[in-house]
Amino acid sequence: MPGEPPPTSRLRLTLAYQGTPFDGWQSQPTGNAVQDHVEKAFAAIAGCRVVVHGASRTDAGVHALAQVAHAEPPASATPNDWALALNAHLPDGIRVTAVSRASPAFHARYSASGKTYEYRIWNARYLHPLERGRAWHIPSAIDDATLAAATRRLAGRHDFALLSANRRTVVRSTIRTVHSIDLRRSGPLLRLRFRGDGFLYKMIRILVGASLRCARGQAGLDWIDQLLAGATRRCTFCAPAEGLYLVEVHYARGKTPAA
Amino acid sequence: MPGEPPPTSRLRLTLAYQGTPFDGWQSQPTGNAVQDHVEKAFAAIAGCRVVVHGASRTDAGVHALAQVAHAEPPASATPNDWALALNAHLPDGIRVTAVSRASPAFHARYSASGKTYEYRIWNARYLHPLERGRAWHIPSAIDDATLAAATRRLAGRHDFALLSANRRTVVRSTIRTVHSIDLRRSGPLLRLRFRGDGFLYKMIRILVGASLRCARGQAGLDWIDQLLAGATRRCTFCAPAEGLYLVEVHYARGKTPAA
Repeated sequence: MPGEPPPTSRLRLTLAYQGTPFDGWQSQPTGNAVQDHVEKAFAAIAGCRVVVHGASRTDAGVHALAQVAHAEPPASATPNDWALALNAHLPDGIRVTAVSRASPAFHARYSASGKTYEYRIWNARYLHPLERGRAWHIPSAIDDATLAAATRRLAGRHDFALLSANRRTVVRSTIRTVHSIDLRRSGPLLRLRFRGDGFLYKMIRILVGASLRCARGQAGLDWIDQLLAGATRRCTFCAPAEGLYLVEVHYARGKTPAA
Repeated sequence: MPGEPPPTSRLRLTLAYQGTPFDGWQSQPTGNAVQDHVEKAFAAIAGCRVVVHGASRTDAGVHALAQVAHAEPPASATPNDWALALNAHLPDGIRVTAVSRASPAFHARYSASGKTYEYRIWNARYLHPLERGRAWHIPSAIDDATLAAATRRLAGRHDFALLSANRRTVVRSTIRTVHSIDLRRSGPLLRLRFRGDGFLYKMIRILVGASLRCARGQAGLDWIDQLLAGATRRCTFCAPAEGLYLVEVHYARGKTPAA
């Protein structure tokens, strides 16, 4: 039809990956970041460099159930063909679970309105062999009630400067809103689910580290208040990466126009 | 007290292990069977050979959440000390999750009254990276109703000669009772839970293979009846080991006297 814009070649990708075998999301000199592998797969198929932008720069060891990314390859194939071809080129530890056309205005990172992460803790004397690389092993007693109290204090809109690893000069603001932190225990397995509008560098792992310090009796809940008030030193207790999962990237309807 | 029998040195062990890194439960020339690793750990601690008897001879690749075994080491340590010491010597992929004293009459295998296994299937186009080595990937459509119908026919007391890999001459009888086969789907994840008084060699994987053949429209349910009636050839469809989990070994109260 005359006047109709040409079909965009921007694609929205959903990806699942295991954190352990890779050097995090963001491209590394090793070539072993998830972004590197996805870009290599695109290049092998398209014959040219295709930059892939991820919604979350997950650290090495962090798993993703549904990372979102966008890329703008030559408009030569259908989204379904891209999914098939990319998975044929990707290592087993990374899978593209969905591909759809996206508007040129869609940006995986900047269009996102929030994210959900889960942190898994295996709280038993011995780490279950099937949980290796998939949970933080804490053999000592955890007081679930104190843990819940700590997470209740952390939820909400706060300055998380002392609960992240960012330098103040790098990010514009260290104020974030954590909409909710849900705690669930099923036997030795403790799961903390974080939903927020955005998280600073290592923030979730430090929130987990700080909460667990309280729940193991190593600090009082007042310390959480002091951290949020900027009235103490930065928290250096960072939970290990292998317990962290990127569960979902949220997009407000208006911000993700369909192609 | 006079006349009281001396404390027995027989121990009952509960073990969890990942199937993938090992050559099954039963001792192998490679020395990489789970039994080999547990016996090596006992030998390193006790300074003498200690034979470990497992309840289930899980195949290479099959996982265990709660394998049960017994052993009779020198009565030099408490069960708790044995658990600590064994785990210090075992590879990460194997953990002793519980140790208790057992009566000399307790035999992990012969005292067992039944077992529960679970078989996991990932039924989606792409295998989730976190399910690698932990589920059977079936990308094609599965008819859950037909799958349930097939498992209903297989449950009960039957001659499973054509649904196992045993040679008739090796086992006394190929008649077994499958108490229940429960089917649960949660999105792409299908779980089949088998409870029975005992299972023949590769029987569960062949029951899964036969049921899935029906559920994928490759065979009719009549074929299941023919297999159970001994009226056709042996079923050669064996589901892969990595989807199978030994969940529990059951012991009748009277058969497991406490020490």
